[in-house]
Amino acid sequence: MKWAVISTWKMSLEGCRKAADLLAQGKPASEALIVGIEDVEDNAGFTSVGFGGLPALDGHVYLDGGYMDGDTLRFGAVGALEGFRSPIRIARSLADREFNNFLVGEGAGEYALKNGFEQRDNLTEESRKRWEAEKNKSQKLVSYDGHDTVCFLAKDQNASICAGVSTSGLFLKETGRIGDSPVCGSGYYADSAIGAAAATGVGEEIMKGILSHTAVMYMNAGMRAQEAAEKAVLDLDLQLNRRNGSCDAISLITLDRHGNFGVGTNIVFPFVYACEEKEPKLYLARREGNHCIYEQVDDITTVKQD
Amino acid sequence: MKWAVISTWKMSLEGCRKAADLLAQGKPASEALIVGIEDVEDNAGFTSVGFGGLPALDGHVYLDGGYMDGDTLRFGAVGALEGFRSPIRIARSLADREFNNFLVGEGAGEYALKNGFEQRDNLTEESRKRWEAEKNKSQKLVSYDGHDTVCFLAKDQNASICAGVSTSGLFLKETGRIGDSPVCGSGYYADSAIGAAAATGVGEEIMKGILSHTAVMYMNAGMRAQEAAEKAVLDLDLQLNRRNGSCDAISLITLDRHGNFGVGTNIVFPFVYACEEKEPKLYLARREGNHCIYEQVDDITTVKQD
Repeated sequence: MKWAVISTWKMSLEGCRKAADLLAQGKPASEALIVGIEDVEDNAGFTSVGFGGLPALDGHVYLDGGYMDGDTLRFGAVGALEGFRSPIRIARSLADREFNNFLVGEGAGEYALKNGFEQRDNLTEESRKRWEAEKNKSQKLVSYDGHDTVCFLAKDQNASICAGVSTSGLFLKETGRIGDSPVCGSGYYADSAIGAAAATGVGEEIMKGILSHTAVMYMNAGMRAQEAAEKAVLDLDLQLNRRNGSCDAISLITLDRHGNFGVGTNIVFPFVYACEEKEPKLYLARREGNHCIYEQVDDITTVKQD
Repeated sequence: MKWAVISTWKMSLEGCRKAADLLAQGKPASEALIVGIEDVEDNAGFTSVGFGGLPALDGHVYLDGGYMDGDTLRFGAVGALEGFRSPIRIARSLADREFNNFLVGEGAGEYALKNGFEQRDNLTEESRKRWEAEKNKSQKLVSYDGHDTVCFLAKDQNASICAGVSTSGLFLKETGRIGDSPVCGSGYYADSAIGAAAATGVGEEIMKGILSHTAVMYMNAGMRAQEAAEKAVLDLDLQLNRRNGSCDAISLITLDRHGNFGVGTNIVFPFVYACEEKEPKLYLARREGNHCIYEQVDDITTVKQD
C-alpha cells in the first residue's frame, strides 16, 4: 500500500483520521504523525496525554515525548517537561540536531522557550481533582493507572516511515521519573528500510525488554509485522513472569515497510489503523494463548478494558 | 570460566583490579562492578566521569549513570544529576524498585538526598578551567570531546551477570541533555541467560542503533561475543555513513554467559579484561576492515588514541 498509519487507544481515532487524510494527499509521514498526536495532546478529555494529563505525586503535570525519522535514524525526545503544549512537536525539532537530541527537565523547558514553542499549563481543574483524590490513598500503589501513551507510526507515499509518542506518564509518578516514551528503542523505533514499532503500558516493564527495537529487529530478520509484535510482547511477558513473578500491562504496535501492521498485547488493547485501501477504524486486540488476535469494533464503550 | 569482568578505557584499570579481586573471592557481580566504577568516579584525574567531570555549557557538572541486573532484567538509572558522589550507586539502588527506576534532574537529586547518598560538588578547579577555556570557542562544536564513559560488565561465580555505566556526558552539553549512558538498551544491557553489553562514545549515535541490546540479541541468536560486538558497531557505522554521511566515535564491550568477551569499535579503543585464568590487563582495540582486532599492551601513552 502507498501509505499507512497505526495509532494506540481509542483516543487516537480522530487524530488518525486527520493523519490518514494528510497521507492520502501525499504529505510527509512526519507531518501527518504530528497532526495526529497533537489532536490527542490538545484534548483535555484524554487524561493521560498533554492538556489535562495525569499529575505526578507532586501535583505537577510533566510530559514525555519521542520522535524518530526512519530514513536517517535521527530521533528527538523530551522527558519530564512542564509548561508546554506539544511534547511531540518539541521532540520532532530536536531530531534535526547533531547533538543534544534528548533533553529533560528544566533544560528541556529552556530549549522549548528559547525556540518559541507554545507554552501551556497542562494541569486542568479535572486533573487537579484527580490528583487531590488519589495522592494520599496509598504510599505503595499496587497498580499504577494511566499509562495510556498515544503512539503513531506512519508510512508516507515516499516510503518514509516515522514513529512518535506522547504521554503524561504514570499517574502519581515521582518527580523526574522517565518512562519508556522518550526512550528511543523502548518507547519507539523506526527504520524506513525495515519498519517501525511503538509501545504503551508500564514503562518500567517495557524498558526491561527494549520492546520497540526488539520488534523491529524481528522484522529485519524476516518476521511479519504481526509475528514480530506478538513475539516481542509475549516473550517479555514470559521472561518477567518467570524471573519476577509478574509482568504489568504492555502493548506494542508495528508497521512494516510495506504498510502492513501488527499488534502485541497482554491486556485488552484498542488501536486504530488506516491505509490506502482501508479507512480509519477502531480495532480491539487481546491475547489468546501464544498469539494476539484483534477484531474491528464500532465502539468499545461496552467492552471491558484494562 | 567461573567469573569474568571487562571495563572501558585505561582509566578503569585499577577499578577492574579491585572488581576482579572481589569476584575471585566469590562476591556478587553487582558489588564488584560498583567498587570498580566508584574507583573511577572518585578519581579527579579522570575528567569524563564523576569527580572533576567535564562541565555542561552552563558550567555545571551533571552526571549520568545506569545499572542492570541480568537475573531479573531490573534496571536503575539517573540522568542530569548534580551534586552527588556516585551515580552508579544511586542507579543501583533504583533497580530494586517496582516503578520510578529512571529519574532525572532535580527529581533524581531529591531521591538521592532523601535516601542518604553522599553529596559532592563534582566541579573541580581543573574542570572549571577547562570549561572557562572552551566555552566561548565555538557556537557550533565540530567534534565534541570527552565521551569516555566508564562501563563495567561482570559475571560472578553464581553465573549472575550485571552491567553498569557512569559518565559526565559530552563536554559542553546543553542543560538537561541525556546521553546513552542512563538509557537501558543503548548504554547498557544485561541478561544472565545470554550475556551483557555496554557502550561508550557519542551517545546520540549509539542511541540511533540501540547498540548494547542489539549485541545481546545477536549473542542470543548464537553469535560469539566478539562477532556480536563488531557486527553491532560496524553495521551502525555503515548505516549512519550511508544515511547521514558520517558516524561519530562508538565503541562497545560484550561479555557472554560463559565469561568470554568481545569488543567492537570504529576508533582506537583501550579496554581492560580479567577472568579466573587471566589477570587484569590493558588491551587496545581497533577496526581492521570488517573486523575489530585487539592486542594486549603494557601501556598506551605512546599509542595515538582518539
